[in-house]
Amino acid sequence: MAKNVLLIGVGGVGSIVAYGIDFTGKADISVVVRRDFEKVSKVGYELKSIDYGDIKGWKPKHIYPSVEAAAKDVPVYDFVVITTKNLPDVVKPEELAEPAITPEKTTVVLIQNGFDIGRPFIEKYPNNFCLSGVSHIGSHNNNGVVTQTQHDECLISYFINPNLAIEDQKRKAEEFISIYSNEKNAVTYFPDAKWYRYRKLVYNASLNTVCALTGVDTGRLDLAGTLESVSIPAMREVIKVAKADGVTLPADIINTVVHSDDGDWFEPSMRVDVKKGNPIELEAILGNLLRVAKELNVETPYLQILYNLLKAVQFRLKEGKGMNNLPEKRPISDKVYS
Amino acid sequence: MAKNVLLIGVGGVGSIVAYGIDFTGKADISVVVRRDFEKVSKVGYELKSIDYGDIKGWKPKHIYPSVEAAAKDVPVYDFVVITTKNLPDVVKPEELAEPAITPEKTTVVLIQNGFDIGRPFIEKYPNNFCLSGVSHIGSHNNNGVVTQTQHDECLISYFINPNLAIEDQKRKAEEFISIYSNEKNAVTYFPDAKWYRYRKLVYNASLNTVCALTGVDTGRLDLAGTLESVSIPAMREVIKVAKADGVTLPADIINTVVHSDDGDWFEPSMRVDVKKGNPIELEAILGNLLRVAKELNVETPYLQILYNLLKAVQFRLKEGKGMNNLPEKRPISDKVYS
Repeated sequence: MAKNVLLIGVGGVGSIVAYGIDFTGKADISVVVRRDFEKVSKVGYELKSIDYGDIKGWKPKHIYPSVEAAAKDVPVYDFVVITTKNLPDVVKPEELAEPAITPEKTTVVLIQNGFDIGRPFIEKYPNNFCLSGVSHIGSHNNNGVVTQTQHDECLISYFINPNLAIEDQKRKAEEFISIYSNEKNAVTYFPDAKWYRYRKLVYNASLNTVCALTGVDTGRLDLAGTLESVSIPAMREVIKVAKADGVTLPADIINTVVHSDDGDWFEPSMRVDVKKGNPIELEAILGNLLRVAKELNVETPYLQILYNLLKAVQFRLKEGKGMNNLPEKRPISDKVYS
Repeated sequence: MAKNVLLIGVGGVGSIVAYGIDFTGKADISVVVRRDFEKVSKVGYELKSIDYGDIKGWKPKHIYPSVEAAAKDVPVYDFVVITTKNLPDVVKPEELAEPAITPEKTTVVLIQNGFDIGRPFIEKYPNNFCLSGVSHIGSHNNNGVVTQTQHDECLISYFINPNLAIEDQKRKAEEFISIYSNEKNAVTYFPDAKWYRYRKLVYNASLNTVCALTGVDTGRLDLAGTLESVSIPAMREVIKVAKADGVTLPADIINTVVHSDDGDWFEPSMRVDVKKGNPIELEAILGNLLRVAKELNVETPYLQILYNLLKAVQFRLKEGKGMNNLPEKRPISDKVYS
């Protein structure tokens, strides 16, 4: 029997993942889409895809305007794939997906940025599998028109759930790969989600964050001296936390990461978000890392101050989206500081 | 004989200072103005002044387009008053003013923001007096039309020059007050420039900088938590440097500074500069403070990281003004990082 898959968050990544799953024909794929619901439920998606070619009027099996609606229609989803931006300070993904998650039955697949993002799911659903997907894809969804310019490469693994057997978790990852992997994409098993997400953090916690804060690309960050004075010390802190967490990153990782943007005036994703006025994935990246650093008693002064500064940036971005309602006159505080 | 005074930088502050000196009638006031030279040399300034009322067509004795032109015309200036923004990483004030400064004769008056800003002048002109002016004024100059909304209150003192007698330095400050103070403004002697500039730094190094970096006002900084997590620790570092420098600030200073914007969503000057795309007074505020902290062996981790981050912001602001010429393609560096 075909598996029931629900995908939440049909952006540039999510639409191609959903299409990839539909393409294999091994699962019934439903999606939750809020912003473009009116349009895509009528005319479907248009794909201009480097992997799949030009496709018009593609519709997944069901298109729902909410997770609640999706949950009412299908008693049990075998997989719930979450491809939203990871903004737990705006919407907690584990609460957003809750109506569609059946305890002990639904496997959650997080194809999202961030570090240690499986933790709240495993805490909330201790007997469900929780898979990790790290996607390398260039794809944008503009009101139902998806332009995919870089191949869909996705590394699938699992966030270790201590309540379940490791071999079952591995098997579940392979099962998900079997319904998502096809001859057009490159979906592969990667044995160690934690290692890989630490690996990505070396860039994301140090270059992505600092570019977001200072408003420059990685090339200008280098020329201004801030790469060496702030980002590299921050990278060393990530490596130190990883080590205390039992994860050994490659010896030449700093050099590799710094040179990864060679030849490009490259603007990392958080910088792009700030520019567009969108909230940044601050908690999923730095917030979670700092929580782990604290548990492991690792000092991270650079990362901590970057986090504290970016909290003010996030405050501003959320206000721009109408999420903070401030009175016209600033309230007077009687707090005493010393 | 009337003293020859040259004022460089006729912005909101400079224009009112120049008018105030002209108003006393005790000095011949000349000005250097670049941006508005064409207009003001023809029709003069229009003042809408809370201190002096509405005045049209006011002209100082001479209006020059450059310091060189001013220096050619008058053999010796008794006073050179500098009221430009203090951007030593763009133009060093001591070099800008050089043609008009006669060694051992001209007294330099710095009515500018920043900390320890007398140092380069005393190094370059070891036998000249160097006075400090801290201006509290609300005034804007828009192409020769000056709108002054807050009274001209200016505290005059001297940057201690170890090569000259203290009583002479004090006397020189009083002499300058005598040609600038009138019944409309409030120009007073303040005995300790160093103390006062440390006092201002508690705000400027911690709130002004952090608001510039994060893009929020002081009220939002408080609500986001960044006031307490970053700005207050930075204030404590300023107090520590001051103490090591022999300056004791008031015991309740942090509380006073934090509450100084009570009731206002207040955007400090550096934040306003960033918003307008203007270079910030980073070196005059943080750069100079960090130099002194280093000389005194005081650790200032918060201030140092703020400085390093703001260097990237300054890089961006200068690029916006055409001061950094970058190639279209980012040059590849072969530097090895570890």
